[in-house]
Amino acid sequence: MTHPSDAPSAGHEYTLGYLAEILGGELRGDASAVVQGLATLQSADATQASFLANPAYQKHLANCQAGVVLLREELSGQCPVNCILLHNPYAGYARLTQLFNSVSPCTPGIHPQAVIHPDARVSPNAQIDAFAVIEAGAEVGDGAVIGTHCHIGRNTIIGNGCRLFPNVTLYHDVVLGCEVTLHSSCVIGGDGFGFAPENGRWVKIAQLGGVIIGDRTEVGANTNIDRGALDDTVIGSDVIIDSQVQVAHNVRIGDGTAIAGCVGIAGSSSIGRHCLIGGSSNIAGHLSICDGVTLNMTTSVTGDIREPGHYSSGTGMSDMRTWRKNAVRFNQLDKLAKRVVKIEKSLSPAANKEKT
Amino acid sequence: MTHPSDAPSAGHEYTLGYLAEILGGELRGDASAVVQGLATLQSADATQASFLANPAYQKHLANCQAGVVLLREELSGQCPVNCILLHNPYAGYARLTQLFNSVSPCTPGIHPQAVIHPDARVSPNAQIDAFAVIEAGAEVGDGAVIGTHCHIGRNTIIGNGCRLFPNVTLYHDVVLGCEVTLHSSCVIGGDGFGFAPENGRWVKIAQLGGVIIGDRTEVGANTNIDRGALDDTVIGSDVIIDSQVQVAHNVRIGDGTAIAGCVGIAGSSSIGRHCLIGGSSNIAGHLSICDGVTLNMTTSVTGDIREPGHYSSGTGMSDMRTWRKNAVRFNQLDKLAKRVVKIEKSLSPAANKEKT
Amino acid sequence: MTHPSDAPSAGHEYTLGYLAEILGGELRGDASAVVQGLATLQSADATQASFLANPAYQKHLANCQAGVVLLREELSGQCPVNCILLHNPYAGYARLTQLFNSVSPCTPGIHPQAVIHPDARVSPNAQIDAFAVIEAGAEVGDGAVIGTHCHIGRNTIIGNGCRLFPNVTLYHDVVLGCEVTLHSSCVIGGDGFGFAPENGRWVKIAQLGGVIIGDRTEVGANTNIDRGALDDTVIGSDVIIDSQVQVAHNVRIGDGTAIAGCVGIAGSSSIGRHCLIGGSSNIAGHLSICDGVTLNMTTSVTGDIREPGHYSSGTGMSDMRTWRKNAVRFNQLDKLAKRVVKIEKSLSPAANKEKT
Repeated sequence: MTHPSDAPSAGHEYTLGYLAEILGGELRGDASAVVQGLATLQSADATQASFLANPAYQKHLANCQAGVVLLREELSGQCPVNCILLHNPYAGYARLTQLFNSVSPCTPGIHPQAVIHPDARVSPNAQIDAFAVIEAGAEVGDGAVIGTHCHIGRNTIIGNGCRLFPNVTLYHDVVLGCEVTLHSSCVIGGDGFGFAPENGRWVKIAQLGGVIIGDRTEVGANTNIDRGALDDTVIGSDVIIDSQVQVAHNVRIGDGTAIAGCVGIAGSSSIGRHCLIGGSSNIAGHLSICDGVTLNMTTSVTGDIREPGHYSSGTGMSDMRTWRKNAVRFNQLDKLAKRVVKIEKSLSPAANKEKT
Repeated sequence: MTHPSDAPSAGHEYTLGYLAEILGGELRGDASAVVQGLATLQSADATQASFLANPAYQKHLANCQAGVVLLREELSGQCPVNCILLHNPYAGYARLTQLFNSVSPCTPGIHPQAVIHPDARVSPNAQIDAFAVIEAGAEVGDGAVIGTHCHIGRNTIIGNGCRLFPNVTLYHDVVLGCEVTLHSSCVIGGDGFGFAPENGRWVKIAQLGGVIIGDRTEVGANTNIDRGALDDTVIGSDVIIDSQVQVAHNVRIGDGTAIAGCVGIAGSSSIGRHCLIGGSSNIAGHLSICDGVTLNMTTSVTGDIREPGHYSSGTGMSDMRTWRKNAVRFNQLDKLAKRVVKIEKSLSPAANKEKT
Repeated sequence: MTHPSDAPSAGHEYTLGYLAEILGGELRGDASAVVQGLATLQSADATQASFLANPAYQKHLANCQAGVVLLREELSGQCPVNCILLHNPYAGYARLTQLFNSVSPCTPGIHPQAVIHPDARVSPNAQIDAFAVIEAGAEVGDGAVIGTHCHIGRNTIIGNGCRLFPNVTLYHDVVLGCEVTLHSSCVIGGDGFGFAPENGRWVKIAQLGGVIIGDRTEVGANTNIDRGALDDTVIGSDVIIDSQVQVAHNVRIGDGTAIAGCVGIAGSSSIGRHCLIGGSSNIAGHLSICDGVTLNMTTSVTGDIREPGHYSSGTGMSDMRTWRKNAVRFNQLDKLAKRVVKIEKSLSPAANKEKT
């Protein structure tokens, strides 16, 4: 059994001159030399490109044997091999990975076992894979790829260059901008969680809004974005959302925001632009988080955040025995604080009044 | 590109007289006036219905321009437009959304590309969409809709009026009552997490129980309800479960309980009736939670709850710098408490004895 | 409507002599007696087998009416019915459940509505269900079952005896060992969450690595295992992963480790062998957890764990009113601790210096 992950770069081969040109950087070295893959600074050999973006890895530069290294100009003197000078070598590395991408490009055509409603409009330049279903009124743009078993609901619109991996479900009345990527088993436009209580039962609130997603946004596997109740749920452009995320109805997420895995965002909350939401964080409903907020992993947000900055909640980990004792004390914390106040008062009755 | 979410209410048009009749409320105003959609108090125009249920929005009533407002009788005097008087205007609003629902009703028939085992019993009044698979011994009731790519396992029974959105998986031996709604990529009847350790490996415990779900229960997208080990996992009637929820084997959930997104419920725990489980809460295994319990979002439950009421756990959020200092102190909390005791004793050796 | 979960054991019937032989234990009782199912000590009747592994259930032994009980030799004297003596009765019970398993065994053959690329290699002894898609270069081993609507990406390799339940997605370049079980809507090989920031946008880092999973590993429903960035994501053998788990790119999980539901593991972290990761725990990126670590449910790990043992984080639950007061105090905890230090100093200025 051969190792398949050796295969992706097969067939890809680029001269350093070509790489410098498409990355927009200055090459120091042999323009005709060729690389066939990518690897880390420590492991790259002469047939592979590498990069240095994080200062923590600078120590590996002196012994690097890569065919070429992407780095900032000030480090070029310490580089023992060919290098390409870039202001943002990490973004350069990202572009390089795209050259070696193992995902197949769009191959226009409709698989004979796809089911497309006669009233759907599918670009002749789109690729529709086996067992995909496209309902009435839906549109699929140029260069879009609809993977196997995807469901595109009624009147849903998929912009140019979108890619839906297999088993994605888009309900009706969803709008994707251009170059949106949706990973497998994600669900866009499922019902928001809206029910009115009445005599011990729940009366379903039909969710009449849709979902609108901007350009170049990416949504991870098994992530949900629910449709709006009356108005739409709105996700901006250049938003990146990881796997296992729940985005409830009428949430709004601003351009450029990143949301890591397992995050839950409750209904009608609004997250600003260029926020970084750490993994497994939870945001309560009807809140507003301003632009430029970073949440540490597992942060629980229960009120508006009006100032950009870095926030956190929760406790540190410890061994079970220590934790148990401290957790018990947490549940007595208010009493403990009051006892301290009492002590302070007993020591200096007048001076400590303001500390209650 | 037109905005598709303008479309859902197209074709829906109701007189106020009709609405008052089906909602069972008294109309104050023009019975022949017509509305074509729904909107909030602030945004509704004369062609749209609205509602006032939450007192926080009462301030918008005076300037409301809706075609009709659902509200309680005592507020009718302040309403500048037509109104329908209801004891529970929120439930009335819910019923109204159903009139404007954009989900297509059941259209009986079996798509030619569905695969149905000859030993399955499918009602002639059910709708089976493309690429659905229904295995031997399964039953699908009157008016049920089985979406594209759904899998209905062997001997699984789907009651009348159920709706399965695309890409739902029901394993074998699952029973759904009537009018159950399952959203995309939810999985009902997957194996519970049962393994016996033996010499550093795990011996799989085949999960022999099934899943039973009552009537009118709704399950969100990407939610799991695992099959039981020996006995069944049992979900009551009128239960509403949001997206990204994990319900482990042999869990029991009582009638009328609501479970918000991202909740995890470990094996064999039992949740009573009419509970409200906040988002991202976690319930350990083999616990019992009585009727009428409300859990705040992100509550961790590690013991039985025997009294109805409102519970919570976790810490509040703060800026990262403050949080870091407090989190460090949490891990010293037991020691801190002991130091306070020591101080108290030093100040009043006899009187403070009981506080350890 | 009959109860379908009565059905699984139908047709299964074993003599106690046979059971003792395949479990490798000594039978005390009637070798020709027959059992037809399994139940708990309290509920089993004479046609059912049962087991006693957890001392908490020993009290039910005296009144047990099972056809046979699996137990340790030292308890056989208290058993009023037939018994089979085993060192590890829980593992024996697990083996017994497999005899009564309700999952259909592999029935070799390719459903006419599966789509298999001519360059894929599918064993004639594999079962490929309706609407499965197998892409070029993929391999499916002997005795493997590929459920309905599964997608097997390019060059992905599925070892002998694997079982993929319906709606599983494997991207390209994934390798499964032998007897791996994947539950519905799980996604293996989706893109890791890698993007480089540049001028307020994100440049996608194509994920060039694959995923390698060892033998006998099981992955729950709606769980994700992302493909690696440059190298592979690697899951060992005999690993059991529950539902709703997120395993990010380049994570490594050692042999025999168990991961309960709703866990999130961020990129490049490594978990040792024989760890037990409690439900809804979260592990930050680039960490290392050694062999033999147990995490309590909902533990947040933000640093390496270098010693085997039992760890936890978070706070205990309390009623909402108490919790609110304590949570407020948590955000003042550092200040409170400093006030205690100040008191200590005021009481004994010299002696308490070291406690700051």
